Amino acid sequence: MQQRHLALALALALLLCTSRVWAQFAKPETAVRYRQSALYVMGNLMQRIAAQLDYSRPNLETIRTSAALLDVLKTVPFEAFVEGTLDVGDTAAKPEIWTEPERFKKLTVEMQDRVASLNDAARSGDVAAIRAAFGEAGKACKSCHDDFRKKR
Amino acid sequence: MQQRHLALALALALLLCTSRVWAQFAKPETAVRYRQSALYVMGNLMQRIAAQLDYSRPNLETIRTSAALLDVLKTVPFEAFVEGTLDVGDTAAKPEIWTEPERFKKLTVEMQDRVASLNDAARSGDVAAIRAAFGEAGKACKSCHDDFRKKR
Repeated sequence: MQQRHLALALALALLLCTSRVWAQFAKPETAVRYRQSALYVMGNLMQRIAAQLDYSRPNLETIRTSAALLDVLKTVPFEAFVEGTLDVGDTAAKPEIWTEPERFKKLTVEMQDRVASLNDAARSGDVAAIRAAFGEAGKACKSCHDDFRKKR
Repeated sequence: MQQRHLALALALALLLCTSRVWAQFAKPETAVRYRQSALYVMGNLMQRIAAQLDYSRPNLETIRTSAALLDVLKTVPFEAFVEGTLDVGDTAAKPEIWTEPERFKKLTVEMQDRVASLNDAARSGDVAAIRAAFGEAGKACKSCHDDFRKKR
């Protein structure tokens, strides 16, 4: 009897956990499109900063607003890498995201730290510092894409 | 001769304006995907708040973080409704966006004001105020979609 209660409690806990994971997304396709959307905006903001850094006198206001929005968005896509969203829609997410979660988390946090540094540099207005911070942020994006995103 | 100089100056000014409009987007498809991405995230955040408001005791933290991100994103899609992006990709944008820019702008600003109010209400934690502000924000989204977004 004790064991049956335990089994029931576990099943209930599992159910609650699952619905919790899903709470913010109506279905797997929604989670995939949500993370793709947030990452697309982030990628575009990185390109805008890159385009400015092609100039010897970049537009610092464009860099500042882009870096500030990147800083806000840096955590947004990652709540949507939920279980059950591998091979859903046109996702390019590799299975390693779920089989090696610690390594995925590590690269995610690295990117977030570097985006925060890029935002600091952008606010300082020091172009040399922005160039260095941008290079580091770009490398962090790439190293995660290399390991966890399928080649199209 | 004077007139030819004037014509040349006008042509140059026009060229500069155009490249300025395009500055942040590599091509029309990029602008379309950028605005769709930002609007998709915004729509999802609205749904999250709606889902919480279905409960008699909604999760105020979820509402607060969703409303805060909405408030940051509220202007983001609109820089991408640039000329030359009608009928590009799978855009649902109606031609009226460009033929009636004042009316489009008016509805955009109305939505932005109401999203700001929703964020204020969310921060106050007053559920009745959140419900009222959410209803107004939702109406503002809908009235713009009704007039300026093609039915799918």
